[in-house]
Formats: sequence, structure tokens, C-alpha cells
Amino acid sequence: MEHITSRKNPSVQQAARLLSSATFRQEQGLFLAEGARLCRDAVRSGLVVPAAYFTAKALEKYPAYAEEIRQAAQTVYVVEPHVAGLLSDTKSPQGIFCVCRIPGLPEGFPPQARAALALENMQDPGNLGTVLRTAEALGVDGVVLGGACCDPFGPKALRASMGAVFRLPVLVEMDLPCALERWGRQGWRTMAAVPDTGAIPVTQADFSQPTLAVVGNEGNGLTPETLQVCGERVTIPMRGRAESLNAASSAAILLWEMMRTRTG
Amino acid sequence: MEHITSRKNPSVQQAARLLSSATFRQEQGLFLAEGARLCRDAVRSGLVVPAAYFTAKALEKYPAYAEEIRQAAQTVYVVEPHVAGLLSDTKSPQGIFCVCRIPGLPEGFPPQARAALALENMQDPGNLGTVLRTAEALGVDGVVLGGACCDPFGPKALRASMGAVFRLPVLVEMDLPCALERWGRQGWRTMAAVPDTGAIPVTQADFSQPTLAVVGNEGNGLTPETLQVCGERVTIPMRGRAESLNAASSAAILLWEMMRTRTG
Repeated sequence: MEHITSRKNPSVQQAARLLSSATFRQEQGLFLAEGARLCRDAVRSGLVVPAAYFTAKALEKYPAYAEEIRQAAQTVYVVEPHVAGLLSDTKSPQGIFCVCRIPGLPEGFPPQARAALALENMQDPGNLGTVLRTAEALGVDGVVLGGACCDPFGPKALRASMGAVFRLPVLVEMDLPCALERWGRQGWRTMAAVPDTGAIPVTQADFSQPTLAVVGNEGNGLTPETLQVCGERVTIPMRGRAESLNAASSAAILLWEMMRTRTG
Repeated sequence: MEHITSRKNPSVQQAARLLSSATFRQEQGLFLAEGARLCRDAVRSGLVVPAAYFTAKALEKYPAYAEEIRQAAQTVYVVEPHVAGLLSDTKSPQGIFCVCRIPGLPEGFPPQARAALALENMQDPGNLGTVLRTAEALGVDGVVLGGACCDPFGPKALRASMGAVFRLPVLVEMDLPCALERWGRQGWRTMAAVPDTGAIPVTQADFSQPTLAVVGNEGNGLTPETLQVCGERVTIPMRGRAESLNAASSAAILLWEMMRTRTG
């Protein structure tokens, strides 16, 4: 294991840039994972790991995680704590980091998919990660990132997703309305989630057919273009203040209803 | 309106300390609200506002908000942008801040209350605020902060709650097990949310009686003492990875089921 003592080490510099720049991640097709659990999840999901970095303390504190990650990594470095600081997005770093190859994202849903979620222009990485995590927990078959969503491989989104992005089919569609029309022709029901008491209450929506729930940006909701191509509009009936439900919580309730009623 | 040009102004110094220190908030019985919407919500909720601070730009940009806030505030200051920076917890401050008196928290639930939520040791202010916001949206009658929850009047929790803490009955109970026993004797069903497939699925829980859903800390769940005094244990059935649902999303689904089945 090579020992890195300088913050100017080129490998560390590259890893740090993967942490801070979405453009650099895209150019390189790589991202940086942080933490024992997330790095191990990346390895278990079969991601290619060109480099792993450990502090000496982390090797001692997380021997089982470290061993599993070391086996999979192409190069392993031991880094000084002040070097590890460059690679961390958290207040108390665990001292374990992996440069991982961004997995090839699928072009379509898996063949048996019947329940999927599309997000449009979701800009908050915490919300995006939370929604991916919820989608995985509830057994949704795939998630579409439509329009200008933030990068699911950024540090905050990764942390909030708990690695769901490694395991869940995640599709990227710059032109969401066009993709929704295509899925509509293929037999998917497209349901726009709207904060509109005139829409179908989610408790009365029919999820018996393959359904794609479409959720918009927190501040602005769905774009008119996307709303127009969706087959139905559904809403979460609220007793309190209608405006008071954030994007991740709305998505949780919508996905829950979709999965609950399908389970019977 | 007094003009403040120095970051050393005592009124600004006090407000900045309210932003950063939960202990100071508690000592003073005051907190700092930031943003046009949150400050207006504080005013509309009838909170006492000893001081309001505006940048000149904010007075121009949000005239209606500013007017409403100025009417309610005991003292109004115009502050230079570099002074406003001291009062802000956000990247792009709107330039509107209010020192508000922490409302007197209720001792018990409102008389007609039938659906409430208790949180135990919830430490993440974003999660806490999101849960309060969801509870308000879904029409829950009250929220209990049990044990060592973070401060709902801290900047991150306030922002995530969108002011729900001003409007929702929020009770604080240091000794949650003791309080749960008391409510149990008063006829409340106490339901502990657990990630345990042996517990009652939330879809089969009986919410027809006044119900208090009890949700634990993200990492550690509920304490054994609290679990022991709860009358029932419920769980959210998941198809995917059971561990993958964060505290705010779990609470959203649990509250949704409680309110949905009560609505009929």
C-alpha cells in the first residue's frame, strides 16, 4: 500500500476534484465515495474501483470493511489525516474513500418493471438522494432523472441515497416530455403529482397498470410541457396546510400508495 | 428605522448568537428567523418580534412581506449586506431577519386531539424540521419531542419546517417513557415504529382510537425503555432493502397511514 503524505499528490488531487465538480465527474466517468458503508456497498454492487484511500486509523477501526474494499480496489493508498480532509465532505470523516467508475446507466426499464418514478429538475442533492433511497426501500423498479436534476453521484446525494443509486436502475432523460410520450405509447400510465385539490386523490388513483409517477422540482413543480404529456394528475389530500409537504416526503407518500395498492 | 453599519453592533451580535447557539436561545427564550416567508409566518402566528432586520435591497424586493413584518416588530433596523451576512445561515440570504420570542410550548395535547407523533432523540435538524412540516400538512394534532431531540428553533430545523413549529402544538418531554405511560393511562394507543418484520404492518394497524406514533433516532431507533412502554409495535413493510428508509420518510409514511385510515 502506497503511503500518501502530501495534499499535492496527483491521485489525491484528482479524487478531491471528483468530490467537488460534477463536470469533472462526468468528464472522467468517475466519482468519489466516502465512508465504510458506502464504499463497501459500491464494491458489493460490482462497481469498478480504480483507487481506495484509507487513514491508518480507519484500517484499524473498520478492518472487515477495509479488507473487502482493498480486495476490490485496483490501487490502495494509506493517507495521512490532513490528506483525508481533502477527500471528505463530512465533519467527522471515517477515513475511507473510493474512486469508483460511474456505472453504465440503463437505456430503459427492466423487462418486468411495473412501478417507476420520474423526477423533473430536482436540484437539492439531499432530496434526490432521499427519494432514491425511498424508491429502493419500497421496491420501485426504476427512477428517471428528467431535465436538469442534480448529480446523483455528488457527495450529498450519495450520502442521502445510502448507495441506492448503485443498485436501482436510474435512467437519465434530458427531454422528459418526449420520453414520457414514448413510455405512454409503450403502455405506461404517466401520473403527474400536483398540489391541486382538483386532481385525483392518490387514494383513488388506479395503479393496477404499469405506472410512472412524475414528481417535479420543489419550488416550481412540474413544467407545463411535462404536465401536458402526462395521462393523469394525482394529488396527496392534506388536512393541514396544503403547501407544507416537501418533495422527498411527497414522493415517499406517492410511492407508498403506488406500492401499497399494488401489493393488495 | 435605525441603520446598522457595524458587525459589532450589540443588537446584531445578540441576533447572531441566537443563530448559532441553542443554549443561548434557551437562556434568552428567543430565536432568529430568516427569510421573507418564515419571518412573515412568525408574525402571522402571533409571535412576539422584539427586532427585525432588513437590508435596503430586501425592503425593495419584498415590500409586502417587509411591511407586514415591520408593523409587528418592536424595533426595526436596516442593516448593511456585510452585517446581514452575520445573521444568515444560507448561501444567498434574502436579507430579512427577525428575533422572535419562543412561543410558550403546550403542556398537553389539544382537547380533541386523536393523532399525534412522538420523536425520540432526533438529532438531525433537517429531518426534525421535515417531520414537523409533514405532520402539519397531514393534519396531525401535535408532536412530542422526546429525550434529546435537536432544537426546533435552530436555523436548519426552522428552514426545513417552513414554520410548522409556529403553528403545530409541539410538546417537549425529557422523560419520554414516563410521558408515554401517562398518555397510555389517558386512553392513547402508543405505537412504536420499528424496522422489524415481526411487528404489525402499518397497513394492518388500528388507528381508530387516539393514537400516538413513536419514532426513534435515525441511527439507533427507539430506546429499550421507550419500546417497553409502547402498547404496540408497527412496521412499514418494504419490498426492497429494509434498512433503506430514512427517519423523515418513515415518519411521512407512518403519519400518512394513520391519517388516511382515519379519514376512511
